[in-house]
Amino acid sequence: MIQRAVILSTGDEITTGKVVDSNSSFIADKLHEIGVDLVAVLTVGDVPDRLEWAWRTAMQMGDVVISTGGIGPTADDLTTETIARITNKSLWRDEPSVEKMRALFARVGRDMPENNLKQALFPEGAEIILNDLGTAPGFRLAVPQADHTAYLIVLPGVPREMKPMLEEQVIPWIKHNRGNDKIFVTRIFQTFGLSESALDEAVAGLIKPDEGKVGFRASFPQISMKVMVEDLPGVAEARAEELARRVYDKIGAFIYGEGDVSLEEVICRLYTEKKLTAAVAESCTGGLIGHRLTNVAGSSNYFNGCFVTYSNQLKQDILGVRAETLRQFGAVSEACVLEMAAGARERAGANVAIATSGIAGPDGGTPEKPVGTVCIGLVGDGVRAARQYNMMRGTRDWIKLLASQVALDWLRRYALGLPVGETTLFRR
Amino acid sequence: MIQRAVILSTGDEITTGKVVDSNSSFIADKLHEIGVDLVAVLTVGDVPDRLEWAWRTAMQMGDVVISTGGIGPTADDLTTETIARITNKSLWRDEPSVEKMRALFARVGRDMPENNLKQALFPEGAEIILNDLGTAPGFRLAVPQADHTAYLIVLPGVPREMKPMLEEQVIPWIKHNRGNDKIFVTRIFQTFGLSESALDEAVAGLIKPDEGKVGFRASFPQISMKVMVEDLPGVAEARAEELARRVYDKIGAFIYGEGDVSLEEVICRLYTEKKLTAAVAESCTGGLIGHRLTNVAGSSNYFNGCFVTYSNQLKQDILGVRAETLRQFGAVSEACVLEMAAGARERAGANVAIATSGIAGPDGGTPEKPVGTVCIGLVGDGVRAARQYNMMRGTRDWIKLLASQVALDWLRRYALGLPVGETTLFRR
Repeated sequence: MIQRAVILSTGDEITTGKVVDSNSSFIADKLHEIGVDLVAVLTVGDVPDRLEWAWRTAMQMGDVVISTGGIGPTADDLTTETIARITNKSLWRDEPSVEKMRALFARVGRDMPENNLKQALFPEGAEIILNDLGTAPGFRLAVPQADHTAYLIVLPGVPREMKPMLEEQVIPWIKHNRGNDKIFVTRIFQTFGLSESALDEAVAGLIKPDEGKVGFRASFPQISMKVMVEDLPGVAEARAEELARRVYDKIGAFIYGEGDVSLEEVICRLYTEKKLTAAVAESCTGGLIGHRLTNVAGSSNYFNGCFVTYSNQLKQDILGVRAETLRQFGAVSEACVLEMAAGARERAGANVAIATSGIAGPDGGTPEKPVGTVCIGLVGDGVRAARQYNMMRGTRDWIKLLASQVALDWLRRYALGLPVGETTLFRR
Repeated sequence: MIQRAVILSTGDEITTGKVVDSNSSFIADKLHEIGVDLVAVLTVGDVPDRLEWAWRTAMQMGDVVISTGGIGPTADDLTTETIARITNKSLWRDEPSVEKMRALFARVGRDMPENNLKQALFPEGAEIILNDLGTAPGFRLAVPQADHTAYLIVLPGVPREMKPMLEEQVIPWIKHNRGNDKIFVTRIFQTFGLSESALDEAVAGLIKPDEGKVGFRASFPQISMKVMVEDLPGVAEARAEELARRVYDKIGAFIYGEGDVSLEEVICRLYTEKKLTAAVAESCTGGLIGHRLTNVAGSSNYFNGCFVTYSNQLKQDILGVRAETLRQFGAVSEACVLEMAAGARERAGANVAIATSGIAGPDGGTPEKPVGTVCIGLVGDGVRAARQYNMMRGTRDWIKLLASQVALDWLRRYALGLPVGETTLFRR
């Protein structure tokens, strides 16, 4: 029965600060989603007696121990032999794994070096965990302890190999061995415009503690909200659906997507479906909006282009902003962003254009327009909107990122026919 | 004598996967720089018996234990009381710390909540570590163990508070207590264009093991190289300077800066000093170059603007690329990026303009121009250069980032009068 987990993260690259250990956070999140208690994360370098200590300690503390790293082909990859040593198991070589590795090398026209053979060695009794993306398969091994059985789960350290192995092979196995018939159903809502406490308040009355658990994860500027339901198969899915309906009824306009999706992906899908085209005029965001939109494959379907008119001269020359507007209201004004958007829309021949102008700091603020003053404007078919926001209290990066997020949210709302100017900044 | 360290990272936000523990990597890097051996990183949630286990274990294993988190004002902040309990020390309240906190709250016009008083409690014998950026001071406490003295160093979990405290107060103290008279002098070179193995090879013959240690940290697309010299004061600095001179003689053109500096910061400084102005024309990079350049405060001094001409139509309308060029060579061609750069330079009235056009994928590749084909062009005063690169084997993000890095390196080389087209991609 698996209730307590320990993560083991190994490698000199972590203990010398060469890389940030993002694997542990990823695994911790997945364990949390299925209600497994993470007792500790132990991190040690590629040093035999430290590895041995970490494995012994982890096995005592956890029903399951998930390790990343140390199963590469080189001499400092010690995970498998450490486990074999402390559990007194011999190692056997799995020939199908060898064949798979040889095939991988053959595909890129290379002979497999002999030291890769090491990656096909497993302690007796181990179940292999397949790795479709690299040479190192993982494995699972049951090791009896004084008062429980510890299941050791060994995965590679490369995130792009580790993550699918964890999600597709390890997590389902743990779920199945949690020791009760209930299942977890998780719905993840991506939101923007409400603070974590406002989200918390909004759903507090909607979901009773015995119906489901609610969690938040803020990854500025977006906040994802999870609703987790634990119940019998059939019942859990239906209740999750019912809870999701309540959530949409209450805060639907703030939810831009479900699951692992970004705002720019949602925009790409919406604009492509609705056959809309978009253009961008940026000042303070400096190109970030264009960059984010074009991070999505397929964005050329709807994104015509972007004008980063950093100087006032370019705002006039390229976008047709009037000198009079700049004189009377300044470049950071609703009047200016409306003219910028109108100009970009016309120059790019797009259905809609969004514009930003603001003071990202740290210099350039005035008493009337302090650092963090940002204007957003949108001109589309039958829609003209502009609004001045105060994004104080942030660094330059923060202000640029938040401004780009508001602009993207306006584009999303435009495509959906929602009122665009109503995007709020973390309303409490 | 401090030789072995343990990092303790605490907080439910880490064990439930809500945040990535980037503090530990930062501390590990700083310890590595001064030659302290990091034995382990222990991570546990805000659970009393787990915290107690972690502290006891860490004190046994390390001469110094550096902890982050758990010294906030709330009930689940348990670090200080855990230490007091296991070391049998009473807690005292430091009135100057209380006054500082009250002053911090007064400055934002708020009364200090009573529970913040907890943050001014320290175990007897503790030395306070000042926190200029937040309410929670840290502390240092010596705890005798069976065979050594363990120094506990308690810091807040908020990175922007923790980092300066570590760098300005903790690391110098550890250096001073390493138990020998030698000091460490570290030079960090930021490079682009050579692979880690090429860098390694280039400096292998230059620096003998007894002269200094060489280390690398790859943070795509740049690689930083460290040269660490340990010797007596005076001697160490002089030798580091001599080694740095050798490094510059050999690979100077690939080094864009020293210390904690980005390529875009170097460009901002160079262009401002030399009173040059720049413009950008982007296709496949989608705005990323403009975004990166404008991340630097003061970029408006030299950066006029950026044209993200994603469609061929815009390349013609805005930048004056000729239809004939597009027909004959295609948008991803040296001819096209030269016309884009020339057009951007003229439209923006800049001294120099850089242009990108490529296939970022995953779709859009052809046998002649597969995904990852990227052309870079530059037109400046008396300089015209264009080159086609193959950035295969990467994702869309990776190709955009690498292309932007090459473009930035060209801008840097232009300002320095270096040949711009010679930027290589991780030459081996």
